[in-house]
Formats: sequence, structure tokens, C-alpha cells
Amino acid sequence: MKSPQTSPGASDSAPLTESLKPFPNAQKIYVPGRLHPTIQVPMRRIQVSTSSHSAAPGAAAAITTPNEPIVIYDTSGPYTDSAVKIDVTVGLPRTREPWVTGRADTETVRMEKNRVVRRASRGHSVSQMHYARKGVITPEMEYVAIRENMLLDEIRDKSLLTQHPGNNYGASTPKRITPEFVRDEVARGRAIIPANINHTELEPMAIGRNFLVKINANIGNSAISSSIEEEVEKMVWSIRWGADTLMDLSTGRNIHETREWIIRNCPVPVGTVPIYQALEKVNGKPEDLTWEIYRDTLIEQAQQGVDYFTIHAGVLLRYVPLTANRTTGIVSRGGSIHAKWCLAHHKENFTYTHFDEICEIMKAYDVSFSLGDGLRPGSIADANDAAQFGELATLGELTQKAWKHDCQVMIEGPGHVPMQMIKVNMEKQLDECFEAPFYTLGPLTTDIAPGYDHITSAIGAAMIGWFGCAMLCYVTPKEHLGLPNKKDVKDGVITYKIAAHAADLAKGHPGAQVRDNALSRARFDFRWQDQFNLSLDPDTARAFHDETLPQDSAKVAHFCSMCGPHFCSMKITQDVRDYAAQQGLKEEEAVKAGLDAKSQEFRQTGSEIYQKI
Amino acid sequence: MKSPQTSPGASDSAPLTESLKPFPNAQKIYVPGRLHPTIQVPMRRIQVSTSSHSAAPGAAAAITTPNEPIVIYDTSGPYTDSAVKIDVTVGLPRTREPWVTGRADTETVRMEKNRVVRRASRGHSVSQMHYARKGVITPEMEYVAIRENMLLDEIRDKSLLTQHPGNNYGASTPKRITPEFVRDEVARGRAIIPANINHTELEPMAIGRNFLVKINANIGNSAISSSIEEEVEKMVWSIRWGADTLMDLSTGRNIHETREWIIRNCPVPVGTVPIYQALEKVNGKPEDLTWEIYRDTLIEQAQQGVDYFTIHAGVLLRYVPLTANRTTGIVSRGGSIHAKWCLAHHKENFTYTHFDEICEIMKAYDVSFSLGDGLRPGSIADANDAAQFGELATLGELTQKAWKHDCQVMIEGPGHVPMQMIKVNMEKQLDECFEAPFYTLGPLTTDIAPGYDHITSAIGAAMIGWFGCAMLCYVTPKEHLGLPNKKDVKDGVITYKIAAHAADLAKGHPGAQVRDNALSRARFDFRWQDQFNLSLDPDTARAFHDETLPQDSAKVAHFCSMCGPHFCSMKITQDVRDYAAQQGLKEEEAVKAGLDAKSQEFRQTGSEIYQKI
Repeated sequence: MKSPQTSPGASDSAPLTESLKPFPNAQKIYVPGRLHPTIQVPMRRIQVSTSSHSAAPGAAAAITTPNEPIVIYDTSGPYTDSAVKIDVTVGLPRTREPWVTGRADTETVRMEKNRVVRRASRGHSVSQMHYARKGVITPEMEYVAIRENMLLDEIRDKSLLTQHPGNNYGASTPKRITPEFVRDEVARGRAIIPANINHTELEPMAIGRNFLVKINANIGNSAISSSIEEEVEKMVWSIRWGADTLMDLSTGRNIHETREWIIRNCPVPVGTVPIYQALEKVNGKPEDLTWEIYRDTLIEQAQQGVDYFTIHAGVLLRYVPLTANRTTGIVSRGGSIHAKWCLAHHKENFTYTHFDEICEIMKAYDVSFSLGDGLRPGSIADANDAAQFGELATLGELTQKAWKHDCQVMIEGPGHVPMQMIKVNMEKQLDECFEAPFYTLGPLTTDIAPGYDHITSAIGAAMIGWFGCAMLCYVTPKEHLGLPNKKDVKDGVITYKIAAHAADLAKGHPGAQVRDNALSRARFDFRWQDQFNLSLDPDTARAFHDETLPQDSAKVAHFCSMCGPHFCSMKITQDVRDYAAQQGLKEEEAVKAGLDAKSQEFRQTGSEIYQKI
Repeated sequence: MKSPQTSPGASDSAPLTESLKPFPNAQKIYVPGRLHPTIQVPMRRIQVSTSSHSAAPGAAAAITTPNEPIVIYDTSGPYTDSAVKIDVTVGLPRTREPWVTGRADTETVRMEKNRVVRRASRGHSVSQMHYARKGVITPEMEYVAIRENMLLDEIRDKSLLTQHPGNNYGASTPKRITPEFVRDEVARGRAIIPANINHTELEPMAIGRNFLVKINANIGNSAISSSIEEEVEKMVWSIRWGADTLMDLSTGRNIHETREWIIRNCPVPVGTVPIYQALEKVNGKPEDLTWEIYRDTLIEQAQQGVDYFTIHAGVLLRYVPLTANRTTGIVSRGGSIHAKWCLAHHKENFTYTHFDEICEIMKAYDVSFSLGDGLRPGSIADANDAAQFGELATLGELTQKAWKHDCQVMIEGPGHVPMQMIKVNMEKQLDECFEAPFYTLGPLTTDIAPGYDHITSAIGAAMIGWFGCAMLCYVTPKEHLGLPNKKDVKDGVITYKIAAHAADLAKGHPGAQVRDNALSRARFDFRWQDQFNLSLDPDTARAFHDETLPQDSAKVAHFCSMCGPHFCSMKITQDVRDYAAQQGLKEEEAVKAGLDAKSQEFRQTGSEIYQKI
């Protein structure tokens, strides 16, 4: 292996150092466990100015309210901790190794370079669901509980926690997520913790509708474009901006090697679609695939540490004819490969017929199922049709099979679905798949905007997230057109963080509104730096502001170039508040006072309290 | 006046010629009226390849289905008609002049340069609502009816018209929009046709929930940034990408002159917020405003041809204290100006107390009311609060007052509203404002993404459009940060076209799905050029594709760089269809045949039918 750092890829690939910058005015903090004191859960603490409103020169009194730092969920891994030395040729620290070995239920398969490859000892299951059902709270479960709570309990200014009642469509998120709650959700299959015992570099996370809505970013080279170096860089870049899991969808040469680099350096769960690699092994001819080749591919990837597999076991022979009159046929790559194999052999899908054997492999490494939607609609015209819903029913059947093996399961869904048809899709999934977590691509709510499908799909993603979808698979601006570059990956990730967060607000997830509240207060106070730093993408917010007002003085100015100094409504509103401060009154009284008798006085003093620029 | 073409503005301002390019493979067509044979309604006809699927070399038979051109609603005006000579110093042809003079109910105020300034003759109302209530179908109404129908009746391939049932929440759009239906909707106040008699360059359009969802783009310089030339260029640029109306929000110097240039060159309705110019007249001091200054500003702008005025007549004294404890106070510029005036004078808002006089002005020129939401929420925390809903009730009261004068009215709304609170907002508006069209900013569904607020708001905009909002006011990526440049304007417009179209699909608006169907068929057929040309932004779609595969050969290739040649699911699905063609069978039979007996044969012929690249 050569170092990705010394061999930059395509022109858009900046050196990894761009991904190693700490976030502005933020620190990486670690919260220890109680049940498992050795666990250290990473979070990002964003500092803000301590004074909420320094009145401008000329005001008689300043209203100052102390502001607290905000702690947010952080997917970026050790890369944003300046205390950690990063060497991608070595990989990340293998923090989970003692947790896995401590359970004393695994055996060594072999040594690989400096890493022990493990599987469950004979007769054992090592899935988080298995432990959960036995009543065991694993370090992974406590880690997840601490992570989801984001230190909300420690906020002193309780007004920051104020939020609107949500509409959570029958979900039952508690005010505080406890390790026991995590265990219970995993046990009943309503959440998963994708955590292969061979991915010891992982920072565990949960996918389930009673947790924060998660997002997945796809990376992976194709035969046409991109290198291993670029893919590792895209991985670090994706998690920097908030990807909760990553799928490596590589289809070109060097699939195994690319994946090895990614997993060893990846703190979030990695998913794959094993049929892609199996297909490479038969030179791209679906009809030459066999169960044995596929099975060996599953084992190969499970031993590398892949955390979840997309398996298209619901693409049954009888559903294929249902796609013949579709506008866009079968658009899932995996789905089309299985369909072609089925037709060529006139046999049932081998991942369906060998499903129990697949479960045996999954539970020996704790690879979670992501039951693939091979028949998802590729156009508005094909949404919610018989092929899509036929497959969904089969995925429900397979969910129960997998659960008998204590295997963790999530279900893949949507594609292109117009807004009015999203809710029924979500409801059907909850019903037919027994509340197993739903993981959807978009959905895209119209077909007419290639180049902007991150947006057509963010609309649908936010809605389905609200209705109960647990994880949203991102779509980049390049969807339908080509392989995404770094800019596309970032645009896709940020867009999906927006959708996921909008959904958390709508569900009324505990503490979801804290960051909105903090940012809006900063905005109203003209604390520009705080507004940038609290945002999903401080770099872009700052750059956009500085395009027209680059001077340092503008960072404390009580206006921006959008309206200019005379027309800022927030400035005018603050004039009212400042007037109150000068008079030594509380705001509401001040307004009333103003209404009663002080109009003349207000008029004389109210207009010159800010310096003009 | 100097020509904007000879005096380029800031560096991001390209010459107007960029906005004058015809759309690729499209023609401007004009559809004549029946009731009014002189009217010529512009539309864009996009040509596509006539053959739906040319089988690749090696296939025994090609399946060819003829494809029809698609006709779309076109807001771009004469600028995209290469037969029209554009001279911004002269302005657009004054097509509506004979319609206005033909009604013989106006008188000349004065000549201004080469233009007659008109107002209603004494005792007359010249509003479209006035005519509609008298049972008159004006040329404007027939124009709108033809425009909304987009020649759907003439599509021969009826399968293109296939679409999913919508959920239209009590709206009652007919299958075909007739001039009589337009008249009826305008008469009952459920739609408006903003069409000042002095804006004779206008191509009329309707705003109402039984019509296509419309979008507005804001332009206008501020004291900090941009010139008249840039604003004219932004206007042409905005309508090129689909803005249905434009608001000129200029606040700097030269407000009158900027507006004159914009209106004389603008084929879509122009809206303004007259209080901005009134404030300039008193040197930016809200407390120095008077009714007389405001009134004269209304008349000045009405005589220039402004089609709708935002008037914040619902910002009442008693609502101002309700904003004192908000997280972000008053964020509407107009709202804050009125609030400050009210407090300074301890008097009721003069646009409220003089509302009947304002109606007299509006109906003398047919300026439509856009009753402003001066108290809209500026943060998630402030959504749907007492201030917002108090003002909405007052706007309902004013709607009925305006209707007594036969004035056309729409109501402004939202701001920042989380998803779960959008529907009640829309329902309340329909109820309290008697179904007058709703016109909303976004709403933004979270506060945490400055730099991406076109996206945070597109989510809310699509939803409220679905629920019945008639027009969506765009938000650009620069919202909260600075004045948008050309790129931001385009991003905002395209994003809002997506939201509006997603809403039309969800409502089940007649023919809404035609363009999706045509584009998806092109996509499935690998007709890349058609896919680009049918999209909202052909330039970006083409550029994104060509980033990785710039060769001409890739434009007919049966894959893109996203998955590469071996992995394209649509190619594999087409293999199944081609197999059918070779066997002379219909697709569904072919699939069945494949299932029955032909598996061996399929295997031998199925994998090499496309040329490898």
C-alpha cells in the first residue's frame, strides 16, 4: 500500500489536511461512561461569546446575558482532535478491541498485518441484538445513549431547551435516552447498532426512529473514475460534515484494498453491497454468479469489518415481470443484477434461498442486514407500485427470519416518490416490517431537476424522516449524471443533515431545538462569529458573509449587506430593547411605557444609538 | 439613463447576452386566443429525439417509439425569442396597451418619455376583480387560461399524461382551465392577476391555489452593494430560470430609476414594498414618516406600473408588545419600520387607519395588495406565535375591506416554521383570509444552516405549496448573510421551481407529471441530450455529466460515470427488453418466456449486446 497522502488523485482532491482542521472555536470533548468507565464518547463543544448583547456605544446600559457553549453530536472521529496523530497507513486506534475480547465469545481466524481477525466462537452469536435480548447492556449501548443525549442535562439556561411540541407519529422517544432504553430498542428490533466485531476502530451509533435521524453518504470508485486515495479522502470529508454511516459502493478494480483502507481509517459504520464485489469476481457477468462466490464474498467482507450488508433478498422471480411496464424498469444496481441472474437461470434469487446461511454468517461477526430495495422506483411514474410493495412484504418476512437468529436488520426504501405518496410508504414499512428501522434513498419528489437532486430528494427525505424513517441515504447534485467529487459529497452531506435535523425538530426529539435556539440568538445579537460557528458549515457561512463585507469591523456590525445599515429589522427591534435598557425597564414594560407616554422621548433618543458605518 | 449593457457592474455580472441564449433544442411558440384573437401566449416547446430506444449495435431489432415534443410554461419573456430584438434602453413591446385602452375606462395622467401614464377615469375601477365580478372575461384572463393549460390537449401520446392521484386539500382545479374558470376564481378572490394598467409590457399570470404554484424572486440593491445595471441583469436572469414574479426591494439610492428600468423591461409582474422608498424620502428615520409621504409614494409607483404592493397594514400597535419576548423580535423590514413608527408616535399604523384611501389608489391602477406579514417569525422558536396569528386575523379583516373595493388581494406568510407546524399555518390562512391566495417566504424548517437556506426553506415551501399556498417567495443561499449575486439568484430560483413543481405533483395538478414522465423516459432510453434539455437547468445537467465524460460518444453511451459500463441497472433492464425485441415478443411475454424455458438462450445472447467502451 502506498500512502494516500503522498499521491493526490484527481484535481478536485485537496490534501487530507483540509479535513484535519479543527472546527472554529470548538473543542473535541470526551464523556466517560458510568457502567463502562473506560468508554470515552466524543462530542464537539462550540464556544460562543459570553455576552448576549453588548449595547452599542452611546447606550446608557448594556444588557448582557451569559451564553453557554453548545455541545453537538460529532461524527468526525479523531480527525478533528488536534491531540490525535493521524496516520492513514496505520489506521485509527482500535478502541473497541477490549470490549470485543472482554465478552470472551470470539475466536481468532487469523492475523492480518497487525490486526487479529475474529469470529464468534462455535455456538455463539456476537450480535448486539443477541446481547440485548439476554439483558446485557454492552459498552456499545451505553456509548450510544451518552452520545444521543449530547450533555443536554448539563445545560444551565433551561430556556435554550425550549422547543415546540412535535408530532412523532407513534414513536416513543423518552426525554432522556438511557443505556437501558437503547438495550430495549435493540432487543425488540426497533433500532440497530451496526458494529462488526472486526471494526474495532468504530465509534458506535444507533439507527432507529426513537433516536436522532441519521444520514448515510455513499463513496466508492467506479471503473471510470477515482482512486483509493480519493475515496479515503472522501470518507474523512464525509464524516467531517456529518455522515453517520458510509457505504463503500466501489465497483472498479481494487475493491478489497479500497475497502481495507476505508475501514481501518473509519470511525463510523461502513456498509457495502457485496454483490458488487461478487460480480467483479465473475468479470461483470451476472449470469455467472453463484451462491458460493457470493457467500465467500460475505465472509471476506465480514472479516474485514464491514458493519452492514445490503442484501437484495427480496428481489424474487415473481416480482420481476411486475417491472416490465415500468417507466424506468429496475434502477437498483443490485436489484438488476439479481433480476438478470434469476431470468438467466430461471431460479429463485440465491440470497433468498440461502437466507438462513447468510444469517449464520451475519451473526458470527455482527454484520447488520440492510435488506435492499432492489425494486425501488426510479421515476415518479413508478412510485409505490406492485413491484415495490411486493418486495417490501418479502423484506418483512425476511426480517422475522433474521430476528430468529438475533441478527440486526434495517430495511431499505424509497427512490422517486411524490410528496403525497411518502407517508403511506413509511406506514406500510412500519407495518410490514414490524418497526425494523427504515433507511431510504431520498425520496426524490420530482424527476425534472438533474443537477439538483440533492434538493429534490431533501424535500422527501425530511418528510419521511419526520414520519419515522431512521436513516436517510444522501443524494448528491451529481445523481443520475456522474460520480460525485468532493464538493458534491459535501453538498450532499450538508443537505441531508438539514433534512435529518428538520425531521428531528418535527418529531420533537428531545433537545433538537437547542442549536436552532442558540444560533438564532446569536443572529439576533449580531454575534456573527457565533452564528457562523454554530452553523452546519461555518466555512461557507463565513465566506458568503465576507463576499460583500470582508472587513473585521463587519463581524461586529449590526447589519449585513442584504439590507444595509438603515434597513436591518433586527437592528430596529433592538433599538426598542435598548431604549428599554436606557430606561431601566424590562422590555415588555418598556413597550407599554412607549405606548403610554414616552413617545416624544423615544423619538429623540431612539435613532442614533448605533454608530453609522 | 445610460445603458446597462455598456456599463457592467460587479465582477459576477456577466453581460446580458448570457440571458439571451435560446434554450437548447427548444423553440418559443405563441398560442393565439379564441375570445381575443390578438393575444399571443408564449410557451417553450422542447424537441426530443423522435425514437425512444435505438437498440445498440448487435441487437437484432430496434424498438422505436415516436416521442413528442413537450410544451412548458415559460416565464422568460421575449428575451429567449431570437426573433425579438432586445434594447433595454427602449423596453419591451407594450402588448397590453390596446387591451387597456380598449376598455375605455382610463384617462391620461401625463406623457412620460414615450409612454402614456394612465389611471382609471373618475368613478371607474380598472381591477381584474372588478371586471370578473361584472362577468367580463378580459384578455388577461384568457391569456392566463391558455398559459396554464400548456397545450396539454394536443398531446397525442396520452400515456405521457399519466399521473398519480393528488391530494389537493379541498382545492378544485378542473381538468382543463377555461377563461370562465379564471374569471370565476378572480371574482371570488381565490386568485389574482397582478396587472397594473401602466405595466403594459406584462405577460399576465395568475396566483391562486387552483393554478400552478408560482414563485417570486427578490432583486434590488441595498446601500452596500450592486448597481441598476446589475439589477436589470438579475431580473432577466431570474425570469430565464422561472421566476413568475419579481419583487424590487431596492433600498439604496436611485430607487425610482432602478424600478423604471426594471418595469419597462420586465414581462412578469413586479412587486415592491413602498415603505422602503418612503423611508428613503425621510432619510431613513421611521419616526419621520407620514401618511402623505407614503400615499404619494404609492401613487408614484402605481403610475410607474408596479403590479403589487406589500403593505404591512396588519402591524397594529397592540401586536408589537407580543414580539418583545421573541427570540428574534421583528425580522420583517417593513414590519419593524411600522412598529418603530407606532411606538414613536403612539399612534396606530397609518396604512391601517388609511386603508380605504389606499384601496382607492389600488383600484385606480389595478395594483394588487400583498398584505405583508410584518410579524412573521424569524426563528423556529417564534413560529406560529400570538404575534404572527394576531396579524393574520387582521389581514383577513383587511381582505374583506379591499374586496369591497374590488381590489385584488394576496396574503404574505411564513418565515421560519418547523415542518409539523406548517399545515396549521396554511389552514388558518385559508380560514381567516377567506381563501385569498397565500404567498409565503419559505418557510425555513430549521435555523442551523446559514449558507444553505434555499434548501432549509425549499423543504417547507414544497410542503406549504402542496397544502394550498399559491406563490412561494424564494430564499437564496445568501439569506441572513448578504446580498445575493447572479449565481445565488439562479440557485434560489431553480430550488423554488423544484419546490413548486413537487407541490403541483402532490396536488395532482392536471398535466403536472408530463415533464417528469418525458424526462424519465429519456433517462431510461439513455437519450442524454433529451434528459438535459428537458431539465430545469440544461446547462448544469450537461456540465455535470461532462465533468467526467466530456466526449461526444458519451452522449449516446448506455451508462454514465456514476456506475460505469458494467453496472448500469438501466442498461441491464434494457438487456431484458432488447432480448424481447430480438425474439419478437412483447416485454411482459418475454419476461415470462425467459422464466419458462429460454434461460439458456438468454444467457448466451444477453450479455454482449452493447458495445464496450
